[in-house]
Amino acid sequence: MSVPDAPASLPVPPDPDAAAAREEEDRFRGLLEAELVSFLTERTRMLREVSAESVPLLEAIHALARGGKRLRALLCYWGFRGAGGAPLDPVAVRAGLALELFQSAALIHDDIIDRSDTRRGAPSVHRRFTGTHRDSGWHLDGDRFGTSAAILAGDLCLALSEEVFTSVGPAAAHGTAARDIFNRMRTEVMAGQYLDILEEVVGPGHRPEDAVRRARNILRYKAAKYTTEHPLAIGGALAGADSGLQQAYAAFSLPLGEAFQLRDDVLGVFGDPETTGKPAGDDLREGKRTVLIAYTLEHGDAGVRAEVSGSLGAADLNDDGVQRLRALITETGALAATEELIAGHTAAADRALAALDLPTPAGAALARLADAAVRRRA
Amino acid sequence: MSVPDAPASLPVPPDPDAAAAREEEDRFRGLLEAELVSFLTERTRMLREVSAESVPLLEAIHALARGGKRLRALLCYWGFRGAGGAPLDPVAVRAGLALELFQSAALIHDDIIDRSDTRRGAPSVHRRFTGTHRDSGWHLDGDRFGTSAAILAGDLCLALSEEVFTSVGPAAAHGTAARDIFNRMRTEVMAGQYLDILEEVVGPGHRPEDAVRRARNILRYKAAKYTTEHPLAIGGALAGADSGLQQAYAAFSLPLGEAFQLRDDVLGVFGDPETTGKPAGDDLREGKRTVLIAYTLEHGDAGVRAEVSGSLGAADLNDDGVQRLRALITETGALAATEELIAGHTAAADRALAALDLPTPAGAALARLADAAVRRRA
Repeated sequence: MSVPDAPASLPVPPDPDAAAAREEEDRFRGLLEAELVSFLTERTRMLREVSAESVPLLEAIHALARGGKRLRALLCYWGFRGAGGAPLDPVAVRAGLALELFQSAALIHDDIIDRSDTRRGAPSVHRRFTGTHRDSGWHLDGDRFGTSAAILAGDLCLALSEEVFTSVGPAAAHGTAARDIFNRMRTEVMAGQYLDILEEVVGPGHRPEDAVRRARNILRYKAAKYTTEHPLAIGGALAGADSGLQQAYAAFSLPLGEAFQLRDDVLGVFGDPETTGKPAGDDLREGKRTVLIAYTLEHGDAGVRAEVSGSLGAADLNDDGVQRLRALITETGALAATEELIAGHTAAADRALAALDLPTPAGAALARLADAAVRRRA
Repeated sequence: MSVPDAPASLPVPPDPDAAAAREEEDRFRGLLEAELVSFLTERTRMLREVSAESVPLLEAIHALARGGKRLRALLCYWGFRGAGGAPLDPVAVRAGLALELFQSAALIHDDIIDRSDTRRGAPSVHRRFTGTHRDSGWHLDGDRFGTSAAILAGDLCLALSEEVFTSVGPAAAHGTAARDIFNRMRTEVMAGQYLDILEEVVGPGHRPEDAVRRARNILRYKAAKYTTEHPLAIGGALAGADSGLQQAYAAFSLPLGEAFQLRDDVLGVFGDPETTGKPAGDDLREGKRTVLIAYTLEHGDAGVRAEVSGSLGAADLNDDGVQRLRALITETGALAATEELIAGHTAAADRALAALDLPTPAGAALARLADAAVRRRA
């Protein structure tokens, strides 16, 4: 099974703005990686003072944080540049790194919650520590050790994320717009994640007619705002964006974030493990009540509903069960409805971006990011 | 089984300094509670915007954070006052609240890691959510839901702690001494906690001769520095303490913190459940390799070592097993050695405090706090 048909990316015409954006973006990525290494090297020194045995905690964070698409850091960066910030300003590098570390912290704990064994094509952090326990022949329960170590690694990563954000200095100090958004982002994403796990256990008791509305609210807070809206807004705020620009940013970034997460949901069910780096149908085994599932419940008859509720999140869901759920999602039209929603959000984001009229090369850069975010296969 | 003999507190003589300290402390506690309620009320409003269903996340945090001895907030406060800070300054109230919220976050995740069912005489946060799951008749696994919800509650609490610390303003901004200590505290305590769980799984393979040294290093980073040294230093830094005063503070607070945690270890094995609010022998079931256990291994013969290693942390450790371990700890002289260590640290802290010569009523207040920290029964 491969990903559903997505609009093919057109070959990029020789656009000088796009070329300038790519070049600047490459340099920004280089600075981001250098800042990550330099920050973690300094913190490793602090851990060595405690004990060299505590360093694996940071190594696990580093192994995870060096990967990823850098979508949040890049949105923050181009939000900063679009609002008049200077190219490659350290303020934007630090803020971008803080967002990437926050994302790493969220992933470490998410993978415990979702019992995900892999992340970015490698073992998830709790599995990494369980593996160390096994390979070292240590005592007591290795799974429990892995989970405990990953709880602590996520906590440390969350603290480090904030530490880097504070190191931005006066532009991110108490009372600034950037700090207010950073705080709101953290509270909202944790509330959204709680709603997500709550829906897994409460969802089967809800009216199927409400499923799509509920799933879309969770998606908005758990993912969309945090993946796109808040990073872009933080970048804008750091460069002094006024409320008009921030509203125009949000008109672009919120539908983009919704489209991004809906694409994620589709990939979580239909994605190719070789490109996603996660097992096929992972979201189904985890019992995620995504918009895709909500449409299936809303469109399906009583038999479909019973079948979906019976097998979603079941510990013994095998490959045949995954195939059967995929068939139901397709046959009820839920996949088509989700693709339609993605297309609608993408069009809204495109229109809002076109209306933004940003300085070069920020406009071209955001257009390319938006395209990559919703038309990806991993 | 009751707590081992501790020096009885003498009746407090009518000391005007002590009376002034108590009165000021009561007013500080009142401001701390008011700040907690006002901050969480504001954040509850933000969660309601996401969904009223996410509010239990904050309610769980509030239920936990309203309890406790307030040792960290008070050390921070008197460190601030001792360095010349103004009485009841909002800066010290906010910093104290940040420390208490950090402690709450650590407890929420600690209780998952240690599988503790109770905290401060009530269900731990993960058990609270498991209870809600059961009482509501929700679907899927209630234990898993409880753990997941508590991971998120701890994350939110950690973010809120930092948010309150940042709200201190310029005195806690990037580059200040107070911020540096706050950052170091978070990194060190998480590294120390990691060493603690590592010792549980690696410890049985270590040489018993090293056990005390290892246990004391863990105790220092996981507990002592974070419970007493860092809070006092943050208070001092917020009032502009110079390095001489900070060194003198540390000479008092570090041995105090070690004595405090050693007392905790003794109570974790010998404490009365009615006063500690935790089941008898909880630390033994959790397999904690405390200094008390380290002394038992160091002083015991091969038979004792085998028995301790065999039953410590065993899932099936019953009351008879707890009694047997208690007997070994007492008979090997480990309890007496630990009490001796507590007495030595307490005397060192007392001497350092006497040499400090702080302005009134900070000196009297710290003397009383120190006394309560090491001579407590809960």
